[in-house]
Amino acid sequence: MDISKDLTEKRKTEHIRISLNEDVEGKNITTGLENYRFIPNALPELSFDEISLSTTFLNKQMRTPFLISSMTGGTDTAYQINQHLALAAQEKGWAIGLGSMRAAVENEDLGYTFQIRKWAPDIPIIANIGAVQLNYDFGVDQCKQAVEMAEADMLVLHLNTLQEVFQPEGDTNFSNLLSKIEGIANSLDVPVGVKEVGMGIDEKTADRLTSAGVQFIDVAGAGGTSWIQVESYRSNDNIRKEAAEAFLDWGLPTAESIFAVRKNNFSIPLIASGGLKNGVDAAKSIALGADLAGFGRLLLASAVEKDVEALILQMERIEFEMRATMFGIGAGHIEELAHSERLVKKA
Amino acid sequence: MDISKDLTEKRKTEHIRISLNEDVEGKNITTGLENYRFIPNALPELSFDEISLSTTFLNKQMRTPFLISSMTGGTDTAYQINQHLALAAQEKGWAIGLGSMRAAVENEDLGYTFQIRKWAPDIPIIANIGAVQLNYDFGVDQCKQAVEMAEADMLVLHLNTLQEVFQPEGDTNFSNLLSKIEGIANSLDVPVGVKEVGMGIDEKTADRLTSAGVQFIDVAGAGGTSWIQVESYRSNDNIRKEAAEAFLDWGLPTAESIFAVRKNNFSIPLIASGGLKNGVDAAKSIALGADLAGFGRLLLASAVEKDVEALILQMERIEFEMRATMFGIGAGHIEELAHSERLVKKA
Amino acid sequence: MDISKDLTEKRKTEHIRISLNEDVEGKNITTGLENYRFIPNALPELSFDEISLSTTFLNKQMRTPFLISSMTGGTDTAYQINQHLALAAQEKGWAIGLGSMRAAVENEDLGYTFQIRKWAPDIPIIANIGAVQLNYDFGVDQCKQAVEMAEADMLVLHLNTLQEVFQPEGDTNFSNLLSKIEGIANSLDVPVGVKEVGMGIDEKTADRLTSAGVQFIDVAGAGGTSWIQVESYRSNDNIRKEAAEAFLDWGLPTAESIFAVRKNNFSIPLIASGGLKNGVDAAKSIALGADLAGFGRLLLASAVEKDVEALILQMERIEFEMRATMFGIGAGHIEELAHSERLVKKA
Amino acid sequence: MDISKDLTEKRKTEHIRISLNEDVEGKNITTGLENYRFIPNALPELSFDEISLSTTFLNKQMRTPFLISSMTGGTDTAYQINQHLALAAQEKGWAIGLGSMRAAVENEDLGYTFQIRKWAPDIPIIANIGAVQLNYDFGVDQCKQAVEMAEADMLVLHLNTLQEVFQPEGDTNFSNLLSKIEGIANSLDVPVGVKEVGMGIDEKTADRLTSAGVQFIDVAGAGGTSWIQVESYRSNDNIRKEAAEAFLDWGLPTAESIFAVRKNNFSIPLIASGGLKNGVDAAKSIALGADLAGFGRLLLASAVEKDVEALILQMERIEFEMRATMFGIGAGHIEELAHSERLVKKA
Ligand SMILES: Cc1cc2nc3c(=O)[nH]c(=O)nc-3n(C[C@H](O)[C@H](O)[C@H](O)COP(=O)(O)O)c2cc1C
Ligand SMILES: Cc1cc2nc3c(=O)[nH]c(=O)nc-3n(C[C@H](O)[C@H](O)[C@H](O)COP(=O)(O)O)c2cc1C
Ligand SMILES: Cc1cc2nc3c(=O)[nH]c(=O)nc-3n(C[C@H](O)[C@H](O)[C@H](O)COP(=O)(O)O)c2cc1C
Ligand SMILES: Cc1cc2nc3c(=O)[nH]c(=O)nc-3n(C[C@H](O)[C@H](O)[C@H](O)COP(=O)(O)O)c2cc1C
Repeated sequence: MDISKDLTEKRKTEHIRISLNEDVEGKNITTGLENYRFIPNALPELSFDEISLSTTFLNKQMRTPFLISSMTGGTDTAYQINQHLALAAQEKGWAIGLGSMRAAVENEDLGYTFQIRKWAPDIPIIANIGAVQLNYDFGVDQCKQAVEMAEADMLVLHLNTLQEVFQPEGDTNFSNLLSKIEGIANSLDVPVGVKEVGMGIDEKTADRLTSAGVQFIDVAGAGGTSWIQVESYRSNDNIRKEAAEAFLDWGLPTAESIFAVRKNNFSIPLIASGGLKNGVDAAKSIALGADLAGFGRLLLASAVEKDVEALILQMERIEFEMRATMFGIGAGHIEELAHSERLVKKA
Repeated sequence: MDISKDLTEKRKTEHIRISLNEDVEGKNITTGLENYRFIPNALPELSFDEISLSTTFLNKQMRTPFLISSMTGGTDTAYQINQHLALAAQEKGWAIGLGSMRAAVENEDLGYTFQIRKWAPDIPIIANIGAVQLNYDFGVDQCKQAVEMAEADMLVLHLNTLQEVFQPEGDTNFSNLLSKIEGIANSLDVPVGVKEVGMGIDEKTADRLTSAGVQFIDVAGAGGTSWIQVESYRSNDNIRKEAAEAFLDWGLPTAESIFAVRKNNFSIPLIASGGLKNGVDAAKSIALGADLAGFGRLLLASAVEKDVEALILQMERIEFEMRATMFGIGAGHIEELAHSERLVKKA
Repeated sequence: MDISKDLTEKRKTEHIRISLNEDVEGKNITTGLENYRFIPNALPELSFDEISLSTTFLNKQMRTPFLISSMTGGTDTAYQINQHLALAAQEKGWAIGLGSMRAAVENEDLGYTFQIRKWAPDIPIIANIGAVQLNYDFGVDQCKQAVEMAEADMLVLHLNTLQEVFQPEGDTNFSNLLSKIEGIANSLDVPVGVKEVGMGIDEKTADRLTSAGVQFIDVAGAGGTSWIQVESYRSNDNIRKEAAEAFLDWGLPTAESIFAVRKNNFSIPLIASGGLKNGVDAAKSIALGADLAGFGRLLLASAVEKDVEALILQMERIEFEMRATMFGIGAGHIEELAHSERLVKKA
Repeated sequence: MDISKDLTEKRKTEHIRISLNEDVEGKNITTGLENYRFIPNALPELSFDEISLSTTFLNKQMRTPFLISSMTGGTDTAYQINQHLALAAQEKGWAIGLGSMRAAVENEDLGYTFQIRKWAPDIPIIANIGAVQLNYDFGVDQCKQAVEMAEADMLVLHLNTLQEVFQPEGDTNFSNLLSKIEGIANSLDVPVGVKEVGMGIDEKTADRLTSAGVQFIDVAGAGGTSWIQVESYRSNDNIRKEAAEAFLDWGLPTAESIFAVRKNNFSIPLIASGGLKNGVDAAKSIALGADLAGFGRLLLASAVEKDVEALILQMERIEFEMRATMFGIGAGHIEELAHSERLVKKA
């Protein structure tokens, strides 16, 4: 019996259960998007039906500027979730991220749980590995293996310092990771990006990452799912359980993280995620400087409990909200939204 | 059987029912008027009885600077409401707006529901047509017809982008409307204005409208009735119903919309409306730059359920509040109120 | 039967009853004093017992910088209240204001209700008349009569525009009052001041009053008792009753009114009142620029329901709070408190 | 029977009981630390296990930058509490403060209650005397006696003006204390510091203290335990009981007090305390300029009710939170935390 496989499976299952059933959001911290509002254009001089959501990301043509954030894989349940997500993403033209593929790289039997290309032939698929694994036996080969296994268009390495710290026996050696990330970025055939998991990417980190050749960034900022809180529900360690409370407002809010990355990096492809609730949030993110808008936990519930139709309906709602926002400010294309001057701080 | 007439009737009836019975106000958005307050003049050196509310609007002498906002018409119930409103407006010297006259222009049998001149011989009556209809078979002739039918002193074209989007089968082609509005403004014998329906007129739109020859503007700003919310109650479409929530704080608050219009247009006749609750709000609006103050949904309840007396009492309350405000700051005339420096942002 | 006497009596009694039993404070408006705080001096280098509250006001030596604000008179109950207030004021060395003396000037039989000198031989007593009465048959003679009747040291004329407006049949002709106030100020042997009744004195009014020779000002600012609300409880007129709600946040907050008066009038003797709750509020008022601090409704309850002892206890509490504040910031004398730089806006 | 001993015992016991069972925190005042947040470093380039908390304070090497604030002594119960605190502090490498030693100096029989050196051989122990006692028969000899009795490494004199004022028969003569403090600081063989007890040290006081040769300062700022409130629970005096309410927001918040002391005193050893709840607060305090972070009432409950293990667990939680914070911002040493630019005011 492969105990470590069993443990991984248990962890993944718990992550999903806790994410869906417990209060895993921070307190006294929000995405910051609610501090902005669009000044409507009462006379937009365009037709609602003409509005186009199409865009490009890393030279890939996309029907929408949306992403299903990296979430799961590695277990049978996760496989079904990934199938639902892939079918819906393909239907609606969203990019899709996979959950951490470490388990499948270590144990090829789990590879099938990430193989969604058959359901999603022409949308961007993003493979996912924890950056810290580069300090624990992972290297270029393992990263290539993940990309191939998933027939992915890109690889994203996630940074998750405090999740590892709050997790029982987490991998907490983050020394000298930058040069290793640089190595991966230089050696793979697909674009390599970096993301957080809900605490945001700060200005200095963004600068160091782009200098190291990282090709895209996903802020995964604070204001949505807090992985410190998720892990505190799993913990048997009283110290970590109680300590989690002191970190309820930890993190860089999504809106501020978009600014932080964009400060010195005007053109790096940028994904906004972390706490986005609807298409208005997505539109704000793009007007603040992001290229794509990612949704995580919000979509998980539909993907787990309901059928693909429910998931698609959620995604159509988000699309409709984005279109209505664009109509309301008179932006016919994503490019116009991105350069709109109608997003202002609330008075 | 004329199905479209039936549908229009159903819609108008539902609008009234929903407006009166459901929570149709935005959330996390207010008129912004509550952020201002008058610095009282403890020694006003005038007599309360001397205070005069009389003013002029588009060269018409008026006993008060008040307007009953455009609301209804086209059905038997609407006809009775319009009668009540007209009788009260005439009694108290308020201007009165009619609801959208599209149905009556398309079907002259409904014309009687807008014919209130007999009860309101000497106050300004404002005819009303959706601007977007100019992209759907309406032109100068239809606009003239509306004005004549109502024996109106002015015509106002309403802009309502997101209402149309959230409405089942709304008219959502707003392309090239500006030049058509310009055409109407140039061809009618009466002044032609433009209003929103509760999301406000922004600075750029105001500038374009005045350049196109529009003769007055009604901001109909956010903070009061939200037509996105009204339509969401009517909708059978789950996407629109859920999406409405993301737009609860949409719009340009009434106070900010007054500033936006006045920014580059110092002399265009300007109506403030959207969420006004009392005569103090009205006085603030005028001190911020408006010429008239409009009240919509607040008056509807009295017009529907009660008799004309109840409506008149409400209007007298608003008048009394306006007078008390003017006395409290030492302004004997509307002109003095308009130029008062006693309205300041709350500390 | 003297109906007008009966009506006056009824009004006075109702004022007291309503003030004590109903919610007569404004809403969304406060004194503004709570926005300030003292930076403590951890090492004050003085002894608590040395702290002195003594001061002078209009050349009168006083044991404390406190005043019982003008409240009542004219009825038997009022007479008893005034007796309680006078005995306590004398005991603790506070100044005391009398309620409006109009009724007693018009009907000398009521004079006894204001004759408190016998219980308060050596503290300042302030006679009180509504300034607006100068437009209704009152002049120098009536004012002199009030001062003599009360053996008062000063006379204060109160301005109460909106109280008169919200009161059934109030005296609302405030025309040309300034010159009449000037006349009184020039003709009386005692200092003549002006106060509001809870809406504050604004900068321009203060400037006009001092130019007219008024010798002291009591701001009676907003944040405490609102006379619009008091009158609305008495009103049978639905319009006034409902309109009162629109004026819940009306007025110039006490803290701002102190600034407003002091702006251009550095040395006029100044009383801060309106919503003061304790000795810390009083100390803040003095640090902001006032010479005395007045308390109204807070003391009324003790004066009505309980014995003089209860009233004295309240006043001793206020004194203790003032001393503790002065000790906490290292101010041994009122002069030092007045010039302290330790009062700052809260961060 | 020694009545004053009995009274002291009663007072000490009541202080502990009230501190643990009643609401003794201020209202409308906080430490101010919650207004700051750390901008995470998503890629810290260090290993969690490498993080070191070691530091020096007044030339003493310490395993952690933490202090158990001065709390108790003088009674049997206090003796047990002190034993628990000492054992835990020794185990975890925290400094420890003793409660006021006045009683033991006056009555050597009580000396044993402060003799914790046997359980805490190598951590800093801080003796404690009320500075105001220097005006009541205490001098260099008594201070030396306190230090010797406790085998202490330092002496701290506490300033507690308003506690003395709100206490029945408190010692409220704070005249000429500065020169006496200077005398003590110059005459003792150990460093002499000054602290408040929960109202903070202000800029001017800090400047005067450092000029007088005081060698360290503990701000003991507002936002945590309010001794005015503690004393109000003990009081039989209605005036003091009611007056306490007016002082609920009194004091200089801990965060502001750190700034105040550091304004002109860049290098004086500085302890932050007053309302600290966890290791994130402690880390913020150090990033704002403090050298050590002190915890008082938070630890008392464990020390009283539970065993040493519970106390140690609390302290380990605080340590873990500090380490997690340092990892989250990429600071491997206290020195880096102290100079971090990642602490910013919340937007
Ligand atoms: C159940 C769940 C599992 C996740 N697993 C991963 C993961 O394996 N790799 C990763 O990079 N991020 C993971 N995330 C983080 C998301 O990609 C995303 O950055 C984060 O949840 C913030 O977005 P949200 O607030 O919309 O959920 C996970 C999130 C959830 C809710
Ligand atoms: C029941 C109802 C019907 C309305 N119908 C129209 C209309 O037909 N045309 C129009 O321009 N505005 C219409 N409005 C909008 C109002 O004229 C006004 O701009 C808006 O309600 C904001 O003001 P309020 O907050 O005082 O209600 C309607 C409003 C209500 C409540
Ligand atoms: C019952 C009552 C009666 C008052 N009568 C008078 C009055 O006759 N003349 C006057 O100048 N002010 C009068 N005032 C106003 C007070 O003098 C004072 O300015 C005001 O109440 C604000 O202070 P407060 O908030 O401490 O009550 C009265 C106030 C109260 C509560
Ligand atoms: C029960 C108790 C007793 C205290 N006794 C003393 C004392 O004797 N000497 C002293 O300097 N401070 C004393 N303090 C104050 C603390 O040292 C500390 O400055 C204050 O409580 C603020 O910190 P906190 O909010 O973490 O409790 C005491 C505090 C408590 C809770």
